[in-house]
Amino acid sequence: MKIAVIGGGSSYTPELIEGFILRADKMKIDEIVLVDIEAGREKLEIVGGLAKRMIEKSGLPIKVELTFDRVKAITNADFVLTQFRVGGLDARACDERIPLKYDVIGQETTGPGGFAKALRTIPVILDICKEIEEYSNDAWLINFTNPAGMVTEAVHKYTNVKAIGLCNVPINMRQMSANILEVDRDDVSMSFAGLNHLVYATNVHVKGKDVMDELLQGIIEGKNMNMRNIHDAPWEEEFLHALRVLPCPYHKYYYMMDEMLVEEKEAAEQRGTRAEQVKEIEKELFETYKNPDLNVKPKELEQRGGSLYSEAAVSLITSIMTNDNAIHTVNVPNNGTISQLPDDVVVEVTCVVNSEGPRPLQVGKLPTAVVGLVQQVKAFEELTIEAAATGNRHKALLALVNNPFVPSSKVAKQILNDILEENKQYLPQF
Amino acid sequence: MKIAVIGGGSSYTPELIEGFILRADKMKIDEIVLVDIEAGREKLEIVGGLAKRMIEKSGLPIKVELTFDRVKAITNADFVLTQFRVGGLDARACDERIPLKYDVIGQETTGPGGFAKALRTIPVILDICKEIEEYSNDAWLINFTNPAGMVTEAVHKYTNVKAIGLCNVPINMRQMSANILEVDRDDVSMSFAGLNHLVYATNVHVKGKDVMDELLQGIIEGKNMNMRNIHDAPWEEEFLHALRVLPCPYHKYYYMMDEMLVEEKEAAEQRGTRAEQVKEIEKELFETYKNPDLNVKPKELEQRGGSLYSEAAVSLITSIMTNDNAIHTVNVPNNGTISQLPDDVVVEVTCVVNSEGPRPLQVGKLPTAVVGLVQQVKAFEELTIEAAATGNRHKALLALVNNPFVPSSKVAKQILNDILEENKQYLPQF
Amino acid sequence: MKIAVIGGGSSYTPELIEGFILRADKMKIDEIVLVDIEAGREKLEIVGGLAKRMIEKSGLPIKVELTFDRVKAITNADFVLTQFRVGGLDARACDERIPLKYDVIGQETTGPGGFAKALRTIPVILDICKEIEEYSNDAWLINFTNPAGMVTEAVHKYTNVKAIGLCNVPINMRQMSANILEVDRDDVSMSFAGLNHLVYATNVHVKGKDVMDELLQGIIEGKNMNMRNIHDAPWEEEFLHALRVLPCPYHKYYYMMDEMLVEEKEAAEQRGTRAEQVKEIEKELFETYKNPDLNVKPKELEQRGGSLYSEAAVSLITSIMTNDNAIHTVNVPNNGTISQLPDDVVVEVTCVVNSEGPRPLQVGKLPTAVVGLVQQVKAFEELTIEAAATGNRHKALLALVNNPFVPSSKVAKQILNDILEENKQYLPQF
Amino acid sequence: MKIAVIGGGSSYTPELIEGFILRADKMKIDEIVLVDIEAGREKLEIVGGLAKRMIEKSGLPIKVELTFDRVKAITNADFVLTQFRVGGLDARACDERIPLKYDVIGQETTGPGGFAKALRTIPVILDICKEIEEYSNDAWLINFTNPAGMVTEAVHKYTNVKAIGLCNVPINMRQMSANILEVDRDDVSMSFAGLNHLVYATNVHVKGKDVMDELLQGIIEGKNMNMRNIHDAPWEEEFLHALRVLPCPYHKYYYMMDEMLVEEKEAAEQRGTRAEQVKEIEKELFETYKNPDLNVKPKELEQRGGSLYSEAAVSLITSIMTNDNAIHTVNVPNNGTISQLPDDVVVEVTCVVNSEGPRPLQVGKLPTAVVGLVQQVKAFEELTIEAAATGNRHKALLALVNNPFVPSSKVAKQILNDILEENKQYLPQF
Repeated sequence: MKIAVIGGGSSYTPELIEGFILRADKMKIDEIVLVDIEAGREKLEIVGGLAKRMIEKSGLPIKVELTFDRVKAITNADFVLTQFRVGGLDARACDERIPLKYDVIGQETTGPGGFAKALRTIPVILDICKEIEEYSNDAWLINFTNPAGMVTEAVHKYTNVKAIGLCNVPINMRQMSANILEVDRDDVSMSFAGLNHLVYATNVHVKGKDVMDELLQGIIEGKNMNMRNIHDAPWEEEFLHALRVLPCPYHKYYYMMDEMLVEEKEAAEQRGTRAEQVKEIEKELFETYKNPDLNVKPKELEQRGGSLYSEAAVSLITSIMTNDNAIHTVNVPNNGTISQLPDDVVVEVTCVVNSEGPRPLQVGKLPTAVVGLVQQVKAFEELTIEAAATGNRHKALLALVNNPFVPSSKVAKQILNDILEENKQYLPQF
Repeated sequence: MKIAVIGGGSSYTPELIEGFILRADKMKIDEIVLVDIEAGREKLEIVGGLAKRMIEKSGLPIKVELTFDRVKAITNADFVLTQFRVGGLDARACDERIPLKYDVIGQETTGPGGFAKALRTIPVILDICKEIEEYSNDAWLINFTNPAGMVTEAVHKYTNVKAIGLCNVPINMRQMSANILEVDRDDVSMSFAGLNHLVYATNVHVKGKDVMDELLQGIIEGKNMNMRNIHDAPWEEEFLHALRVLPCPYHKYYYMMDEMLVEEKEAAEQRGTRAEQVKEIEKELFETYKNPDLNVKPKELEQRGGSLYSEAAVSLITSIMTNDNAIHTVNVPNNGTISQLPDDVVVEVTCVVNSEGPRPLQVGKLPTAVVGLVQQVKAFEELTIEAAATGNRHKALLALVNNPFVPSSKVAKQILNDILEENKQYLPQF
Repeated sequence: MKIAVIGGGSSYTPELIEGFILRADKMKIDEIVLVDIEAGREKLEIVGGLAKRMIEKSGLPIKVELTFDRVKAITNADFVLTQFRVGGLDARACDERIPLKYDVIGQETTGPGGFAKALRTIPVILDICKEIEEYSNDAWLINFTNPAGMVTEAVHKYTNVKAIGLCNVPINMRQMSANILEVDRDDVSMSFAGLNHLVYATNVHVKGKDVMDELLQGIIEGKNMNMRNIHDAPWEEEFLHALRVLPCPYHKYYYMMDEMLVEEKEAAEQRGTRAEQVKEIEKELFETYKNPDLNVKPKELEQRGGSLYSEAAVSLITSIMTNDNAIHTVNVPNNGTISQLPDDVVVEVTCVVNSEGPRPLQVGKLPTAVVGLVQQVKAFEELTIEAAATGNRHKALLALVNNPFVPSSKVAKQILNDILEENKQYLPQF
Repeated sequence: MKIAVIGGGSSYTPELIEGFILRADKMKIDEIVLVDIEAGREKLEIVGGLAKRMIEKSGLPIKVELTFDRVKAITNADFVLTQFRVGGLDARACDERIPLKYDVIGQETTGPGGFAKALRTIPVILDICKEIEEYSNDAWLINFTNPAGMVTEAVHKYTNVKAIGLCNVPINMRQMSANILEVDRDDVSMSFAGLNHLVYATNVHVKGKDVMDELLQGIIEGKNMNMRNIHDAPWEEEFLHALRVLPCPYHKYYYMMDEMLVEEKEAAEQRGTRAEQVKEIEKELFETYKNPDLNVKPKELEQRGGSLYSEAAVSLITSIMTNDNAIHTVNVPNNGTISQLPDDVVVEVTCVVNSEGPRPLQVGKLPTAVVGLVQQVKAFEELTIEAAATGNRHKALLALVNNPFVPSSKVAKQILNDILEENKQYLPQF
């Protein structure tokens, strides 16, 4: 059992390593290979050192390897985990800054920012998939790389790799719901449906009792249902009751677009964009990781965001390895699950997972109150993926025009020009 | 053969009368009944007088009757034409003003303005339909009342009346295309698909030759493809080529939202909203109509807008009466025509029309570049119709949240409050 | 926690009682009410006596009540189980005999026989549902009454009762597969999709390994994959490999129609139809049940058929009561699960079951090799249900014409006439 | 304007030539090329001679050429008409005889006979299409070759050729309806939906009046609604009223399977199969054609069947050439027209035809009473096409198992073995 982690030098890696250690009783791992690009050599060595010390401390017979040879890492892997970031935090800062110039939400994974990230990332993931097809064709690709939904859809549309897109939003929504309802997370049963970073919890039960109204009331009263990286604007009470499904924290960019934009612009001016803040956090994190006496995941990592990522990832892998039919919310091909979306797009839905992989619980029709937004954003995503894979500028322009944050074709064109210019080195396809 | 015109006192009526006179060789009309509400007595009498003089001049054996008794007008009618305006131009001015307060497009038939008009109009049309079901159940309802798509959908969802929604946008797009291409309108074959005031011409042929690129180029070069009541912002060249279908003039509110809003606000301040301008035009028109020597449609009516309405309407009625299988673009139940929309919604599509009514030419899938917007707006429409028919405030709020012009649930709520307040007298259902 | 069993005098009841006793650790039952019609008084008293002795022996604090008052039984029940048989075994014998007169398969639950049973049963289940709506509107209806798919579909189409149709075919297929593969049933993961008595296992895994070919090979080599009440004609080897999904035993009537018909006719002549054989078995069973010393389920019951019914039923109820997210294959509304069938029909598919009830695992498209038959039979079922609920003779005729066993509209009409004549007393709707 | 006729030596050719002559005022044809295979040299020369004499008599400036070089014929053609028959009437006789051995309907275009014909024909049409793609890629392929629906579907699934499948059944149904109703064919408006040789007229209007009941009554009373080549078994009265759509003559094989089989077997024994009868007719026809004084279509051709083929074909070509938006019923890709069938299959539906080709009038959902049969037969067709194109024996077996005429997988296998054996020389793909 071999696991390859692409983007192994990420600051998240200790989270993942901790996850594997904690689940060691459920699945036997022989080898973890952390692979990164030359430009990330320093980070990989720091993180890799910590990973080795963590495993050593655990006493588990797991081999940890570091490499810059991606094919070597992929060869014969059972699972390939992708958590790389093309262009690093500098590119992200750029993704956040460009839209703001035009009074448009600048966000890492949604809107024009997510669009730019998709253009940079999709060609790389398709290259990785070619290698998987050649060197470990039965491997599962577990993709954490954002925009996770679009990246996973590109893999399904253009390759034969068995891919699952994973995001920590659903597991966090469930955890926060448990906190609000003051019960254990295991007692909260939630069904999710939508797209990555645009997912709704369509029902919430505790021990068989529908507690949606109770939960929404808690949120309205100010209890936490937010992600660390998103401005915590309060939900409008009547709207939430009218909707009567639980939107995800990223929905704030859509349902409070004006307010979120104002906050973003202020924040960018005063504290820098989120990427710029993360850069600071990362710098400190890597300093901490360097400590040769450190052999556990440091507390500070929780500041970084990515809460519960490791738990989501490791329990997903466990379900595949142990055939346990557990329920996970992941990104998979739609294939009729949400009947108002095309079959070949990727959706984020609740699935039963076993050794055959994830199988969605049927959704049928999304409520009219949410389906339009999901369809509009999916059209944006489909056009983005096509543009990223083919380098077709017309498709790229149409993608941006379709994004709900973008007010006009003129602004779409300006943003597109800026993105193509600033990311030139990462976008050979254009 | 009896035709009832509800809202018979409208300034458009002479247009319609002229249409019937011009087509007199194709269909024999026995009686035209113009009906209006008491509050419109003066207008009805003025317009009715002109209508009678026009018919008299034509020498045709058509009886023109004026009445304020709607049931009497409807009884035994073969066609019921609806062109009424609940609340008149004052209500329209209000629809245009309220959204502007919140920096949102204020437009008569789309966005929150169209939403308000739907709330006022749908209960009235449903009352009319109850009368048709009782007093002339085999009659065709030809609905011109805006928002024509939503009003027609309400009729199909809540009644058994045979209804067709008619708009002059498609026929004008075809006429303007003929002008641009310098050919006869009859030589231009265009397929339309979408929603009312959100319709696309998906292909354009002249004598079997695809001339879409030529047409788009003409538009980019500034040739006229606009409606009189819409600010003539020029289309962005690259966008139009990328789209490669022809949007309708109302699409400017979506694809140039920022620019259109700026213009609207300026116009409202300097010249009044469009409703306020129309009021002036109408005043003068009615003065002209009063002239007892006038017995033809006055030229000034063309200033009013509504170009080619009469032609569209009268030729549609002719197709039903004469079973001629002519092609018309009208609003009909979708029933699978556009496969990405629900069966029971109303769409604006190209149809073959004969004595059985309109039958859509199959569309299949709209291009990804346009489908998202159409689906988002249709969700807005479905929620609006449900709110109008039931008086459910939550549905009304969700409708506005789903409208692409509205930036947040907070603004949606503010606009909703204003609309419900200002239209109180017309909205007993709330 | 109260369970009402309609048709409580059935010979299957001891099976059910045993099931409740065996699961007593998982769910606490307060009361079991067995209800039957006056005509079944003797049977109810015999079976009820045995049931009481079984519970007594178990030492569990469960109250067993017998009644002929259906409303009383239903009032405040948490679960209503239906296992009644309108017209008893005599009507069944008739269902089996009539088609044979015309050289058409005569079978209890499929073909014209199942059609006749549906006509008799659906009006009764709809009456029961009215009572549930009134006297225990939150109760779950677990329907075992055949034709279980059609009966459950009728409930969903014409009532608001929460109904699940249950059949022992899927659980037996899984058990027999385990036997063939020589593993524990719990290690066999199978996905089912189709209709009741027309269900396919679309994949079979053991501990994550695809074992479909191995299983099919075992069947071809003669290992048992059959139900006791169906003639065990061997599957054609090449066909099974070509199909590469596992048909259910009832599929033999479709895929070996000629051979099954020949056998049925011979059997009917020599040994009587299946109903006539069962009558004998039942007679003996009830003799056994009468024994006042008997306080366990007698072995002879296994001869009767209905293998694993109790296990399927009791574990399904357990999942609803304990919210355990276990996987069951049951009959539920399609709602997009099989995308080539209408939303409002009932299908037999693999579901996750918890306190919210069953939720299907998404199927998407059935393979082309099986979808046509499923669609044809579903059309037959839809027409049958409509005929049963409305008494429309034209729909009844069209239903039979659509049944794959029926060779012509003429034969359909002859069979229909015979069925209506012979079942007159049970078909007031016609 | 060049027309290539593949299978130009067919006895039907004079029919076609007559059609072109009669429509000469509507479209200018420069050249007609008749092409056939070497084995058909004699026939081509006879028919070609007659064709030349007919054109000469007409005085039209049309060049008629005969060739055995298919590429030459196709090069620069505007229309390619296909009316070839792989294996000739001997192969057809075999298609009719083999199923009868197993008590299964043996028919040229449906059932196992149509299956065999598809296996022989599809590889040839795909070869022709490769040539069209290379030598006249803008040409329209008008396919008359049976089974016309499957052959056309194969073209759409495996090539990029613009193909329309044409059958004379709909035009004949309309003509016969006109006869029964005693009106002109032009006054009968009928909508068709279904598959080739499995098409229903879903409504019939005369001058806007629904006359379905009148028409069905006429048929029940024995008025002619049959094709010359189909045994004229009378329709069952109650069934036809229950169905309330008009089935096509070929539906008799499905709805009167028992009776049709009995008749076929008798006929085959006494008079030979239809192919054997046609052979006699053809022999005489070609004798007649040889007459050097004959310069018109001989009356005897009408005995041959194929009534109104020429009219259907020539008026279809006229619509494409003259952009007349006339209504034709042809075989085209479904693409959502019938919403219960896949997008990529070919259906026979009513279309508007202009220079862009045929565009279906939207059907939506077929009635439940007919949809099951259409879906079952379409599954058979899809599997047949895949088998024919790939030579996959498993798919071929599954196709036959799916055919409603075939009673079991065992009989399917026997028939398949016979077909593959007897057609060995025409089936290199297997």
